[in-house]
Amino acid sequence: MKLLCVGSVAYDTVRTPFGRRERTLGGSATYFSVAASYFTSVGILAVVGEDFQQKDRRLLEKHHVDLQGLRTVEGGLTFHWQGEYGYDLNDAQTLKTELNVLQGFEPEVPLAYRDAPFVCLANIDPVVQLKVLDQMHKPKLVAADTMNFWIDNRRKELLEVLKRVDMLVINEAEVRQLSQEYNLVKAAQRILAWGPRVVIIKRGEYGVLKVTLQSVFAAPAYPLEEVFDPTGAGDTFAGGMMGFLAAAGELDSTALRRAIIMGSVMASFNVEDFSLGRLSALDRSEIEERFAAFKKLTDFSPLD
Amino acid sequence: MKLLCVGSVAYDTVRTPFGRRERTLGGSATYFSVAASYFTSVGILAVVGEDFQQKDRRLLEKHHVDLQGLRTVEGGLTFHWQGEYGYDLNDAQTLKTELNVLQGFEPEVPLAYRDAPFVCLANIDPVVQLKVLDQMHKPKLVAADTMNFWIDNRRKELLEVLKRVDMLVINEAEVRQLSQEYNLVKAAQRILAWGPRVVIIKRGEYGVLKVTLQSVFAAPAYPLEEVFDPTGAGDTFAGGMMGFLAAAGELDSTALRRAIIMGSVMASFNVEDFSLGRLSALDRSEIEERFAAFKKLTDFSPLD
Repeated sequence: MKLLCVGSVAYDTVRTPFGRRERTLGGSATYFSVAASYFTSVGILAVVGEDFQQKDRRLLEKHHVDLQGLRTVEGGLTFHWQGEYGYDLNDAQTLKTELNVLQGFEPEVPLAYRDAPFVCLANIDPVVQLKVLDQMHKPKLVAADTMNFWIDNRRKELLEVLKRVDMLVINEAEVRQLSQEYNLVKAAQRILAWGPRVVIIKRGEYGVLKVTLQSVFAAPAYPLEEVFDPTGAGDTFAGGMMGFLAAAGELDSTALRRAIIMGSVMASFNVEDFSLGRLSALDRSEIEERFAAFKKLTDFSPLD
Repeated sequence: MKLLCVGSVAYDTVRTPFGRRERTLGGSATYFSVAASYFTSVGILAVVGEDFQQKDRRLLEKHHVDLQGLRTVEGGLTFHWQGEYGYDLNDAQTLKTELNVLQGFEPEVPLAYRDAPFVCLANIDPVVQLKVLDQMHKPKLVAADTMNFWIDNRRKELLEVLKRVDMLVINEAEVRQLSQEYNLVKAAQRILAWGPRVVIIKRGEYGVLKVTLQSVFAAPAYPLEEVFDPTGAGDTFAGGMMGFLAAAGELDSTALRRAIIMGSVMASFNVEDFSLGRLSALDRSEIEERFAAFKKLTDFSPLD
């Protein structure tokens, strides 16, 4: 297995201006792993309750996601998130968070996972992220995500995580909150001094900024005519990016930039339907077509 | 003269988190023409009061801006705008608008201007924009800008303008307001059906989208570590873009895309200081360097 993701498997209740879905499959590890599965072998480390449905497990299996690390808690209920979006789909409003089995999640990394060269610590308690890192054997690249709640309540542990990861993937508001700096370039530079060598800032419909000590890379989001549900877009982005990197073998700046575009490609599909409706039904040629469309979207080189 | 801009010459009182300037030179035609002056011969059609200072006139003259169309109203006062910005520099709050001599501005296009092949109708009353168009002799490319006030109060006249221009340059909130459509691609397409063949959406620090019936182009804004004052960024963008186009001679998609990048280059300089502090003191090599930096900022082509 090339890529491990620790994160959540969830049921989401989501309302957007375009519809509503009740307790539909979601969670950071779910979106991440399905996106990554188009590029590499991926496993998840997560926990669900007894209510986790067979059809949802089958969806993950269909994508050859390794489920050795998916633990079912007897008598427990799967993490449930309820939220809604207005027309500004960049901005989710959380209505309810039922942690359920996520509470007290003690991650035990299966032996078969411990040599995975690529690791994503998706948005989860930094304490859990650290415990996972402790169990891994010298991964080649570790990425972490986080959110406002952990920045407020687990700052010390989060800074520990940052010392030990190569890449932080974080949204625009949260990079400001974490760094206490409004300017994004300065905010990223401050975080680079804390450990990671790459900071990737997710800006929703405005795309992505990658900041290293050497350079800044800006990628737009794909401008879509129909966006139904942005839930999971950030995790899908990370999954596409890390999956592509794990398959590419290279970790230089060009590989990283192309991986970011591939992450953006996968995220652009994901928002076209609720839950994993679109993401789980892609074929390789659609993915390659949209990657090529990204090239056209951003190209301003002179004609030969 | 290759390029004519009708718009405002103003005094601005601006406060940002980084400082404050009192009655400093501003106005859409000012920013536009100085930005364009690095690329082509440009003239302005605008009106000022008797308070307009000699040093401000000299700044425009230093850039060889043709001032035949700059009328001084005896006993009048120059248009004055007062506004402030918080840390989110995308969002100006207008505190005061004193139209002064702009009220009842009757544009008379000097004979020497009437053959200008490139015309920008900067943000001004659509009635004035139409009167200018009536006096021009078959320009090759006409661009127009507008704002929320005209969309609300001169919708009919604005739609007349749109029928007669090639390009609409408009900000993100205003394209939604004008089209009554939230999705930007759909919003632009709706406007394309009303006349222009290009819609350019300005998204502040998030860059620019160009939408035509054939394609979408996304350009990021240059990520700066120091932004002092965003006033005039949109007009500077338009001036750099139109100046570059007027000099290029070509109007194909590639020329337009490169012109948009050049507009973004000029806007990125403009925000680095108050008023025209930075914009009026550039040299060609700085401009070319930043254009090259834009290439690096967005490039994800594989290494050869």
